[in-house]
Amino acid sequence: MELSKRQQQIIEIVKSKGPITGENIAEKLNLTRATLRPDLAILTMSGILEARPRVGYYYTNKSQNKIITEELSKYIVKDYASHPIIIKNGVSIYDAICTIFMEDVSTLFIINNKGDFVGVCSRKDLLRASMMGEDIHTTPVDIIMTRMPNLSYVTTQDKVITAAQLMIEKEIDSLPIVQHKQTGTVEIKGRISKTTITKLFVSLFKE
Amino acid sequence: MELSKRQQQIIEIVKSKGPITGENIAEKLNLTRATLRPDLAILTMSGILEARPRVGYYYTNKSQNKIITEELSKYIVKDYASHPIIIKNGVSIYDAICTIFMEDVSTLFIINNKGDFVGVCSRKDLLRASMMGEDIHTTPVDIIMTRMPNLSYVTTQDKVITAAQLMIEKEIDSLPIVQHKQTGTVEIKGRISKTTITKLFVSLFKE
Repeated sequence: MELSKRQQQIIEIVKSKGPITGENIAEKLNLTRATLRPDLAILTMSGILEARPRVGYYYTNKSQNKIITEELSKYIVKDYASHPIIIKNGVSIYDAICTIFMEDVSTLFIINNKGDFVGVCSRKDLLRASMMGEDIHTTPVDIIMTRMPNLSYVTTQDKVITAAQLMIEKEIDSLPIVQHKQTGTVEIKGRISKTTITKLFVSLFKE
Repeated sequence: MELSKRQQQIIEIVKSKGPITGENIAEKLNLTRATLRPDLAILTMSGILEARPRVGYYYTNKSQNKIITEELSKYIVKDYASHPIIIKNGVSIYDAICTIFMEDVSTLFIINNKGDFVGVCSRKDLLRASMMGEDIHTTPVDIIMTRMPNLSYVTTQDKVITAAQLMIEKEIDSLPIVQHKQTGTVEIKGRISKTTITKLFVSLFKE
């Protein structure tokens, strides 16, 4: 919103002195109430100020919060999906560790031989396994992975903000993006991570 | 910005048909140009539409981008700093791994015996070390850490958006927050991570 200098002065007055009547604002600016009428109309219509009868004008940031909330609601998971790194169940923990370094990701998704998504394995799971002295060359990743349905996921049609809320709530760094199959199982379609959210956050900033 | 139904209709027309003259917008709405004048004035003053002489009205999101960019500029690193998990140099890789699990963090910060910040060690560094068959009980973390000054950091006075940009650019999950000491070295004051950014992103969404 391109505000005039006078409109900005009005906002500053209302911010520090509000609730304040139109007459009192006019007085502080050495102007008449009539002169201020169009400015006050614009500031209330745009939601920057609100007016309450017999109380006066007060500052609200409703329009700003609404604009940001509407903007954040627009982003849909499918448009921000990253490529998922998938391994088959039965693969050894050692091979999973090699994959995580080769692909430079923090999470692997595990499928069975029907292509169903069955579990997730994180860098943290692998570090723990490597410490527990298990035989990582012969133990399959299935032993240490988090299994469906005990894991969080989103679908392609979910909002990015929903994915972000879920990652914070569940304290995880990335989520699988899945699609439900007719068989009742799910297929892995992608991943979304805190990196995705950070990139989106950066892209909102336009200097 | 609380827009009237008619103002929303105008925006939709300009979005799909713009640039379009005021006369043509009026025609589509079966109204006169004079009736539309106050609506068009509000939409241009608020920065949603722009008017160019002899061309007409066109849609711009300048005000929205500006509001979001101003909002994101407000957040300062010091207000979003997390507690840094610090270990002393000379500590074994094994003890570093134990600390990373006990504290449930992805990054450790390493200081020397003068309290100077000297390096960073991530979960990824530790997983790599555990795989390379080094003797993790006797090898100090110093061998695998990333050392100052070859690492990225922010100060308490930097903007959060700067930290987010740096994490994306350098492909890292968290940054140390440092303070310069008189001796020319730096002290570790906190950390900021992609989790911080994701939390902030979620907090911007107000339903």
